[in-house]
Amino acid sequence: MSLATDTALLGVERLMVELVRVSAEPGEPGGEPATPRAARQHLEAGGQRVRARLALHACERLGVAEGQAMRLAACAELLHNASLVHDDLQDREELRRGRPSVWAAHGADVALCAGDLLLSAAFGALADLPDPSALPSLLRCAHAGTARVIRGQCSELATKDRAVPDLAGYERIVIGKSGALLGLPLELAFVAARREDSLPQVRAAAHAFGIGYQMVDDLEDAADDAARDSLNILHVLATLPGEGSPAERARRLAAGHLETAARQAGALPLGAGSLLADLALALAKRADSR
Amino acid sequence: MSLATDTALLGVERLMVELVRVSAEPGEPGGEPATPRAARQHLEAGGQRVRARLALHACERLGVAEGQAMRLAACAELLHNASLVHDDLQDREELRRGRPSVWAAHGADVALCAGDLLLSAAFGALADLPDPSALPSLLRCAHAGTARVIRGQCSELATKDRAVPDLAGYERIVIGKSGALLGLPLELAFVAARREDSLPQVRAAAHAFGIGYQMVDDLEDAADDAARDSLNILHVLATLPGEGSPAERARRLAAGHLETAARQAGALPLGAGSLLADLALALAKRADSR
Repeated sequence: MSLATDTALLGVERLMVELVRVSAEPGEPGGEPATPRAARQHLEAGGQRVRARLALHACERLGVAEGQAMRLAACAELLHNASLVHDDLQDREELRRGRPSVWAAHGADVALCAGDLLLSAAFGALADLPDPSALPSLLRCAHAGTARVIRGQCSELATKDRAVPDLAGYERIVIGKSGALLGLPLELAFVAARREDSLPQVRAAAHAFGIGYQMVDDLEDAADDAARDSLNILHVLATLPGEGSPAERARRLAAGHLETAARQAGALPLGAGSLLADLALALAKRADSR
Repeated sequence: MSLATDTALLGVERLMVELVRVSAEPGEPGGEPATPRAARQHLEAGGQRVRARLALHACERLGVAEGQAMRLAACAELLHNASLVHDDLQDREELRRGRPSVWAAHGADVALCAGDLLLSAAFGALADLPDPSALPSLLRCAHAGTARVIRGQCSELATKDRAVPDLAGYERIVIGKSGALLGLPLELAFVAARREDSLPQVRAAAHAFGIGYQMVDDLEDAADDAARDSLNILHVLATLPGEGSPAERARRLAAGHLETAARQAGALPLGAGSLLADLALALAKRADSR
């Protein structure tokens, strides 16, 4: 990443922390209340900020000004973090980024509230755009993306009580779960640049990336997922006829989706998808080495 | 309410249901997924729609066009319903509007996702404003209001493990819990009408109303709250010296706050707070009859 991006990323971190701050009520004693503190600490634990980087990169290529880009990046990253906090609560996942997850550290009540605060903050990030002319479309895009993610999470949870889905069912679920939030940073950048005509290609690339990404993740989490009875591509493939072990087939499938994602992202106008294409190729390599 | 308001309220209902709809993915089998269905059914169970009525009424008085007003009303009402769904989940409250609450009917996972969907939809309601010129301020106002509600809920939950708060502590909590969401419809109307100078008076009226409202609610829920160890004004007053029984004192306090709310709301420009003032006086009467 360029030096400019590093500076902008620091700005995104500051914006996100600012947006989950809740000012004290008059006369209120004591320090920061539990929910904003939990949300802040979750953000300060870091993460790769892939979605913020994707937004900043795409905006730069598309000529969207940096002040605008930082807020779009904060929106996408806050939505992702809201979903992490609520997913960890639902899955009773105790660790996140090597530290106790929000529910494990602060309890279920605070985790629910902290996820809500992060979700609200994602929309709040759009309130201070230097150029608000595309704000209605950006808001529509953010709500639609959030709705798709929620639906993906909901479909995944529904698999726990049911038969293992077929491959098409698996792909539909992970498109919602991973693809929607990975595509959102680029969608926001294209909407801000008034290039909505490219959105179908952006989504196609993000969906292929999301499927490949989740398959690689499943290969790495196979033992954990089996213990938790979580959806995993290896279980799906184990129920279907095919050549080679489920793991070999998952690696081949993942590589195929990631190569498709790289090709589609690489073909987006002005090189706006080149970071996503690079990430897809790096991930395809990782799949190959598992 | 006027006939015009009744028609507008029907429009608000339609908008809300539309905003929690998630379109089917290509190739997806079966009907409506569990989360949007749960959110829709929760909305269709009705409710008094006090917040929608407050927004519509204030907008009408302030000269905000009806199409605009309906979306502001949907925003405030969706935020309120998101908070109900998540509060019921946290409090393990089994009934809502005489029917099983979302978590009781569909489980905790769907309730968490449905509350998230309602929260996102509240912001989505602002995306299609006929006049988007005040959208940045409206978005800021909606996020700030949500953050205050989340904080109020969080402070209330924190009281479960601690000593009963004093009266000032109780009022701070219920201002967040009830006042913030009751004030938001009027705040949005005043922001849309570009009369931000009145916001401090709007908030003062809403805070007084919120405290009085919660005290009346506490008087009616005293037995339930005692069983659940929930915050209730009667417990607060039982620990403090004063004349008369805790219930008599709570009634007096509630009446005082509601009369203040009625006076402050009645003094808002153009009669924009007259519905809130009427509600405050009706509630004061109810308090008196308990």
